[in-house]
Parts: sequence; C-alpha cells; structure tokens
Amino acid sequence: DPNLKVFSLNSNPDLARQIAEHIGIKLGKCLVTSFSDGEIQISIEESIRGSEVYVIQSTSDPVNQHLMELLIMIDALKRASAKTINLVIPYYGYARQDRKARAREPITAKLVANLLETAGATRMLTLDLHAPQIQGFFDIPVDQLLGVPTLAEYFMSKQLSDIVIVSPDHGGVTRARKMADRLKAPIAIIDKRRPRPNVAEVMNIIGDVQNKTCIIVDDIIDTAGTITLAANALVERGAKKVYACCTHPVLSGPAIERIQTSAISELVVTNTITLPEEKKSDKIVQLSVAPLIGEAIIRIHEKLSVSRLFN
Amino acid sequence: DPNLKVFSLNSNPDLARQIAEHIGIKLGKCLVTSFSDGEIQISIEESIRGSEVYVIQSTSDPVNQHLMELLIMIDALKRASAKTINLVIPYYGYARQDRKARAREPITAKLVANLLETAGATRMLTLDLHAPQIQGFFDIPVDQLLGVPTLAEYFMSKQLSDIVIVSPDHGGVTRARKMADRLKAPIAIIDKRRPRPNVAEVMNIIGDVQNKTCIIVDDIIDTAGTITLAANALVERGAKKVYACCTHPVLSGPAIERIQTSAISELVVTNTITLPEEKKSDKIVQLSVAPLIGEAIIRIHEKLSVSRLFN
Ligand SMILES: Nc1ncnc2c1ncn2[C@@H]1O[C@H](COP(=O)(O)O)[C@@H](O)[C@H]1O
Ligand SMILES: Nc1ncnc2c1ncn2[C@@H]1O[C@H](COP(=O)(O)O)[C@@H](O)[C@H]1O
Repeated sequence: DPNLKVFSLNSNPDLARQIAEHIGIKLGKCLVTSFSDGEIQISIEESIRGSEVYVIQSTSDPVNQHLMELLIMIDALKRASAKTINLVIPYYGYARQDRKARAREPITAKLVANLLETAGATRMLTLDLHAPQIQGFFDIPVDQLLGVPTLAEYFMSKQLSDIVIVSPDHGGVTRARKMADRLKAPIAIIDKRRPRPNVAEVMNIIGDVQNKTCIIVDDIIDTAGTITLAANALVERGAKKVYACCTHPVLSGPAIERIQTSAISELVVTNTITLPEEKKSDKIVQLSVAPLIGEAIIRIHEKLSVSRLFN
Repeated sequence: DPNLKVFSLNSNPDLARQIAEHIGIKLGKCLVTSFSDGEIQISIEESIRGSEVYVIQSTSDPVNQHLMELLIMIDALKRASAKTINLVIPYYGYARQDRKARAREPITAKLVANLLETAGATRMLTLDLHAPQIQGFFDIPVDQLLGVPTLAEYFMSKQLSDIVIVSPDHGGVTRARKMADRLKAPIAIIDKRRPRPNVAEVMNIIGDVQNKTCIIVDDIIDTAGTITLAANALVERGAKKVYACCTHPVLSGPAIERIQTSAISELVVTNTITLPEEKKSDKIVQLSVAPLIGEAIIRIHEKLSVSRLFN
C-alpha cells in the first residue's frame, strides 16, 4: 500500500530498518539533524499527503533530545497533511514519573502524553509501559505490545530444565506469571523488606529456588541495582544458575559493571533501546522486536486486532 | 508580597539571582537534577499553593534540555496549585522556525508555544522575539521587552561621536531606527544581493559610513557570519571604528573565532543567554537585563502597564 509510510528518527535506526523490511517497504526519506546551536532541524524528503504515517522513536537517553525530535516530526507531518500520525515508541521514557509520590512532584509521563497529542499524534504503539495506567493518560488509541513472548521464545529454544521464573518485586508478579505460563515453570518472588528503620533491607525469597535455573524477569533494567542484588540472593539460596531478562535495557550509570560482576550468567534484553558499543558485553544478548512491531503495524493498517499478537 | 514567587531553572542562574535581588525577594527553593538515565527530576521545596509564580528559563543551548526542564516545572507547579504560572523566557529558542520556508517543514516556534500552554503556562514575558508574529502563536498574554534600551544606554555612556547605526539586513531596520533615535544618530543598511546566480553576494551599503563610528545592531548573533562580513565591509567603505551589539548572544560554532579575527572592536550583548567560560573574550561586553525584567515582573504583579518600560 503506497499510503503506508514508515519513518525513523534517531533513537532506533536499526530496529526501524528491520521493521520496514518485515513489512516489505522502504523507510520514508527524512533528514533529522541539528543546527549549529543545537536546535533540531527536520526535513521530510517525500510527499506524505494523505498517507498513514508510522514514526519509530524511543524516548530513551538522550530522552529530551529524542522526545523533541518526535514532537517536531509530528508537527511537520501534520502540516504536510498526513492522514494519520501513528507513533511507534518502543520504549516510553519518563514512565516512572507516573504519579505524585511526594508533594509538588510533576507527573511527567502524563505531561509527555499531552505533549504528543498536542503536537498532533493520532495513535501510539508501544511495548511494556512501566505502568499500564499510562494508557489512560492518552485520549488517542494506545496499543501495548509485550516483551515476554519474545523473551520466552529465546529461553524455550535453550531447552533449560528445572527453571523457576523470578519476579524481582511484588509489582512484577503478573509479568513473571505470563513468562512462567509460556515456559510451563513455577514462579518465585523476591520479597524485600526493612526489618527496622535504618537497618539494611533483607532479600527474602518466596518460592523454592534450590538447585533451580532461575530466570529473573523485569520490564526495565536501569542501574541494575535491584536485579544484581536479587541474582546474588538467589545464588545464596542455592540457585544453580541465574539468567535475567527485561524488555527495556536502560542500563545507565553503574549497570554494566554491576552486571559483569554479579551472579547473572546471561542478561537477555530486546532492542526497544539501542545499546551503544560501550554497553555491549558478552553477558548481554539482544533480541529484536522488529517482527512483533512490524506485524502490529500491518494489523493496525489492515484494521485487524493487535491484541491477537500477545494472547 | 509573599504570594509572589520567582524560581530559576538551569539556563540563567545568575540572571535569576539578580532579578530576585532587584525585586527584593529570595529565589524559590527547587531542585532541578537528572536521574542516572538522563530523565529530568524536579522537586519544588516550598509550598506555592495560591502563589503567583514566575519561572526564569531561556530555551538556549542545550535547547531541548532547557525546554523540557521548563515544561516539567510548569507541570509540577500546576499540580501544586500555583495560582498563575508566568514564564520568563529571556531568549525564546526555535524562533527562527517560525514559518514553512520549504515544503514539509515544521513550525517549531508555534509547536513550542502550544507545548508551553498545554503544560499549563498562563503568561509569558520575553525579550526580542526573532519575529514579533510569534506573540500571536500564543493564546495566553505575551509581553515582549526590548534589548535596545539597555544596549543604547551603554553606548550613550561611552560618549562616542560621529556614530551611525547599521542594520545588517533589511529585516532589522526597525530595530536600528529605535537605536538611532535613542542615540540621535543616522542609520545605514547593509544591502546584500547576488548580482547573478552562482556569483558571490555583494555587500552594498546604503548610507554614509566614511570616517564614522558604526554600531551594527541585531537581535540574535549565532554563527556571526553576517555580522563579521558586515563589519569588514564597513571598514572597507571607510568606517573609522565598528561596534556590534545584539540582545541574544547565541554565538555557536565558529562565532567566537570569527569575531576575534574580524574588524569588530567590541561586541556588546545582554545576558538573556548565559555565556560559558569558553565563549567569553575581551572583545565581548555583557550587560544585564535583570533590572528590566525585575521591573517588568513588579509591574505585571501590580497590574501596571509593561509597555511603559520600552516606550
Ligand atoms: N528516570 C528515573 N530513574 C530513577 N528513578 C526514577 C526515574 N524516574 C522516576 N523515578 C523514581 O522511581 C519511582 C517510581 O518507580 P516505580 O516504583 O518502579 O514505579 C519514583 O519514586 C520516581 O521518583
Ligand atoms: N537554529 C537555527 N540556526 C540556523 N538557522 C536556522 C535555525 N533555525 C532556523 N533556521 C533557518 O533560518 C531561516 C530563518 O531565519 P530568518 O530569515 O533570519 O528568520 C530559516 O530558513 C530556517 O530554516
């Protein structure tokens, strides 16, 4: 369909190429550069009048730069008479600022939703929102894909035995459950608590991990503090081997060093966030969500149900 | 008035301190930092419930970072029940993206206006918008102050004789006229034109500059290409001495080197944009617009006319 156009901005050029390939079209031509003073300059190099446009951009680090690229692109597409402007935001940044945890805090995840709609977005497709409630921050349709099927498939292909799926906190149990169902494995939960004020947290483990191959599953791994402490606690409780996996490899600050020196034998992530060279390591395996996103775009464009993709 | 609060973000801390001092209050307490992954974290450290809040932030380089700080601050203030959220944006970035000059270009100056309003801004105060039409991009009240009075006052104090005020292009003649009226001087205009396609531009000068002290006046000096070529052309036409001045010292890329090696003997700018150490030079004089902005805030808060300040 010549009316279907896919554009890539600067966050995930490889993923975008793979998505276009999966769909069987060429990426739309556009230039996203900066003026000498750092202001973003976008020029769309082909007509998109009347087109259904998909823009691929994660709001990953540098998040403010990536977000502004996306907003300016939406503005340009709107003024160039795109019929629909469909955002593909594999990693939705600022998702952890989703409530007023303290007085006078912003709710940046909602602000970003408002900004994207104000610019002119008509739909959003994303993976694993940190909180599913963020879907309700939008007034436009939001489709959420999950990383779990892609991650589970990888572990299935490894044909591991005696596995336990581990949630690193109580918030992640639903995700661990989904993973466990696919791998036909039991689950365990890391139950952190502070026995008394000013005393170090205790990592209690609910479930049996003795002599098991543990797979810790999370949505985001950022500084990797939680996950590496969890891995070490699992080994202390007799786990045979510890894998970790997540959809969004933020991996900021001390993350890589912590992972390298932890009990984690392999970290499996997806490419919703591009890993720069300095974050690559032989412990990290990166799986592509391009087939998943490509399929979702085809289904949205053909007005078919997307939820089919993860049920 | 305890209901008047002034907050500074990260673009112009010195200017903000001077403004608060001029008004005779302390800056509001807030922390604007970044998480390990680059996401902005803002915490407002005092109650602002029912307050009339002024936030000082230029959308200067790094423009996307500064803009997001401002948007997130507005969101936090709105959710903390500020009565009014008055933006003081001494330098309004993206102002040169104010029209579709080519097909499929964004109009980022309008996008930014929409984003600020969506976040919750109720008023904006700024200096020398690159195009006055940008006021019309907002649906909230906009007050525009001018750099010319501050710049003219400085040149007046130098007691120069035989001066001519020079506009570097046809777009800047109104500004040069205002400066000339204050200094009781004639004006000249640089009339660039390309005699034939693929032939270098010719710098024609309309007006007499022979043996005169020229003061070139502009709103923004960015890479300093135009202004340094103009200065050299003036000297070639017999100018005795050449000063340059502008409100907004963007000074990106080759600007400093061009200025150092040009015929400009002194460049006078304001502090709407903070100059980092590496952009300071003994040719550059920076004047403070804190008294001007401070006075404007007092007048807005007391519901008096602001236009008084520049008529
Ligand atoms: N980019 C970030 N990096 C680290 N912590 C964050 C970030 N954004 C928000 N937070 C904090 O993370 C907490 C929410 O995380 P969670 O409990 O996992 O939903 C809140 O207390 C936020 O202040
Ligand atoms: N940050 C920038 N740096 C350099 N040129 C710009 C910038 N933003 C916009 N422009 C270009 O400057 C032109 C408008 O400048 P002007 O004619 O002075 O209003 C347009 O062609 C823009 O594409």
